[in-house]
Amino acid sequence: MVDAAIQSGTANRECMFEAFARRLPSGRRYGIVAGTGRLLDLIRDFRFGDAELDWLRANDVVRPPTLDWLADYSFSGNIWGYREGDAYFPGSPLIQVDGTFAECVVLETLILSVLNYDSAVASAAARMVSVSLGRPLAEMGSRRTGEYSAVAAARAAYIAGFAATSNLEAGRSWGIPTMGTAAHSFTLLHDSEEDAFRAQVDAFGTSTTLLVDTYNIERGIELAVAVAGTGLGSIRIDSGDLPTVAAAARAQLDSLGAVNTRITVTSDLDEYSIAALSASPVDAFGVGTSLVTGSGAPAAGMVYKLVAHKDDADQWVSVAKTSASKASVGGRKNALRRLDAAGIAQEEVVLVDDDGPAVAAATDAAAQPGSATERSLLVPLMQAGVVDERYLGPSGTRLAREQNAAAMRELPVDAFRLGRGDAVIPTVFA
Amino acid sequence: MVDAAIQSGTANRECMFEAFARRLPSGRRYGIVAGTGRLLDLIRDFRFGDAELDWLRANDVVRPPTLDWLADYSFSGNIWGYREGDAYFPGSPLIQVDGTFAECVVLETLILSVLNYDSAVASAAARMVSVSLGRPLAEMGSRRTGEYSAVAAARAAYIAGFAATSNLEAGRSWGIPTMGTAAHSFTLLHDSEEDAFRAQVDAFGTSTTLLVDTYNIERGIELAVAVAGTGLGSIRIDSGDLPTVAAAARAQLDSLGAVNTRITVTSDLDEYSIAALSASPVDAFGVGTSLVTGSGAPAAGMVYKLVAHKDDADQWVSVAKTSASKASVGGRKNALRRLDAAGIAQEEVVLVDDDGPAVAAATDAAAQPGSATERSLLVPLMQAGVVDERYLGPSGTRLAREQNAAAMRELPVDAFRLGRGDAVIPTVFA
Repeated sequence: MVDAAIQSGTANRECMFEAFARRLPSGRRYGIVAGTGRLLDLIRDFRFGDAELDWLRANDVVRPPTLDWLADYSFSGNIWGYREGDAYFPGSPLIQVDGTFAECVVLETLILSVLNYDSAVASAAARMVSVSLGRPLAEMGSRRTGEYSAVAAARAAYIAGFAATSNLEAGRSWGIPTMGTAAHSFTLLHDSEEDAFRAQVDAFGTSTTLLVDTYNIERGIELAVAVAGTGLGSIRIDSGDLPTVAAAARAQLDSLGAVNTRITVTSDLDEYSIAALSASPVDAFGVGTSLVTGSGAPAAGMVYKLVAHKDDADQWVSVAKTSASKASVGGRKNALRRLDAAGIAQEEVVLVDDDGPAVAAATDAAAQPGSATERSLLVPLMQAGVVDERYLGPSGTRLAREQNAAAMRELPVDAFRLGRGDAVIPTVFA
Repeated sequence: MVDAAIQSGTANRECMFEAFARRLPSGRRYGIVAGTGRLLDLIRDFRFGDAELDWLRANDVVRPPTLDWLADYSFSGNIWGYREGDAYFPGSPLIQVDGTFAECVVLETLILSVLNYDSAVASAAARMVSVSLGRPLAEMGSRRTGEYSAVAAARAAYIAGFAATSNLEAGRSWGIPTMGTAAHSFTLLHDSEEDAFRAQVDAFGTSTTLLVDTYNIERGIELAVAVAGTGLGSIRIDSGDLPTVAAAARAQLDSLGAVNTRITVTSDLDEYSIAALSASPVDAFGVGTSLVTGSGAPAAGMVYKLVAHKDDADQWVSVAKTSASKASVGGRKNALRRLDAAGIAQEEVVLVDDDGPAVAAATDAAAQPGSATERSLLVPLMQAGVVDERYLGPSGTRLAREQNAAAMRELPVDAFRLGRGDAVIPTVFA
């Protein structure tokens, strides 16, 4: 497309692209935006190096003028977006990208890859957190998603309220708290379960978490307390019918005097099985597969569409696809969340062909603390190619986590029903 | 675990770890192994650099002896595995890793991340290919998975028989044939659909593919043929009820004299919707979301378990977890696929506590062409830390694609039923 647009003279037309979701994943009531902080980093560094250019040239993928253009590429436009960690609904204009057609369109795959994956994980994570009754959740799903996605998943889960991750690279890159766990292989490596427990307690002290279900849970617990004493930090159970097993484990620990030993459960948990443990004596959860695969919705379904461009007279023209079942709303947009007096969200208001997000961003600082009736949703993320540094790195990730906590407090209580339903507030185009 | 094992003196015990799937994703009849070629590259280069070591030290994650060990890390053991592209079944010992406990266990997350994601995509891709009736499929899902996973997905899809990808980086890194497509934004950018078609035909000639559904498909087709002539290469349709729309498009193209213009369809295709187009005049498919998310099974469910270790007398000891619902079969293994006289698979035979894969590998070259009754499944991938180069890069990827084609020819025809069922052949442990 860039090649043809350069040839046809339309590559430099100023354009506004928008990323949005036509609908939430089936049955979901809200979505959580995540990936923004990662994305801004990636856009800032997005270049075509010699290796890429040589390959494009050798394979005759694009013509020489396009190769020259790619060689000079760095995004110099403007990006506005929802705050990372915020909630979103169908049609919410999550990211708006303003620049020439060519510079905006080459970012399409990058923007959607990051937002679709990270938001899928954060949206699933938020549902798990909301049914955990305040008990901590640890992200343990690295092995069930691509090796780089694993780091992104740990970050997205933390933004949506998870307490920690087992992915050390996520700790290093993004400042996510990390935790470790012993696997069954550690027990199996030793000549006996007792040897394994003793080795672990010798290494980490009695506050460690012993995995008690390699052979027989009851004997495992007995042995764990025998080795570590009643001051044992916690046990982990990774199999069985968890409500039954957790109750039995609690009773056994108490009868052994280990009344403060905590119980961590893992084993293919998702929001439904976590909710089913509401009344169980479980102190912490470790969640893997279902978290990093979006619990049934592994991609958030966001698309990236051209919504307006300038014509030859330098006037903005709204554009939209009109074909069956995939029509979209053209035009530059602004977005507000209307709240009631108690601060609970009532409507997502998308203002079409408004003065655009630049105005929203300017008034945002003022609107945010003052008004209890509406909240401006778009903030400037990148201006003339320069990223707002506040959104980057570990500090940007913490900011997103705070934003998520605030956004969750705004949602109507119906948002937290696990049963299938529609978006908890309507999106109104005005 | 490495830290505690170093402290307890068990870190250097020789171990055999195995990656396998306890079951296929619900309803699936076979799985396809993918990721091996990527994985071997990643294992060969797996190191802990200064940035990682400094972070581990500063955060007190592991003790100094472990830091020293990590600083010197490079995998020096042996790995056997199923050929990339081969079929697998529940319990198939897909990867066997032999080395010290510590050097094998640090690879767990990497091995599972790569195999679980890539095999999920390849397994879904194979089902789509098997119902495509020989019509080419293009991978177009980069935007619906993490930005690095996108490249892996393109590679996995190609191994399982897809013809091409829209991901240029997959072309550059792995030699996958690439293709491009115009998006709706290209049409919307121009002042009219006619301007857009003319720009594209000027740039790429009449053999290009014009996207005809931005506004109205019937007018779009009329315009496409008016601009490009009856020699137009193809049209793409990305919306609507595709059997209906494709039939109407074919009739219209024929009536306009564009009898050789091909029809490509996209729009949330999966194996079921591709099968539903069996009788439709569709010449090619573009598949995105469902492919890169494993069509309902976004992780292949493989686990990595310690199956044997040497004791202090240097004898192998088989080990296995025995807990509820997650018991596994300990011991070193060999694996054969038993075929009938027509070369159709009958049984997956897993030999436990056999002489192990080293022997299998040695006899493999002889067994492969000669016998029509069984095929040895494990090949050496890495020996004493050295990778078999044949499995790497673009040539390894082509080899995997050939292996996949051969493996698919071996499967009983029931394997290709789309309806839910069990593994098409039983796994027998002997």
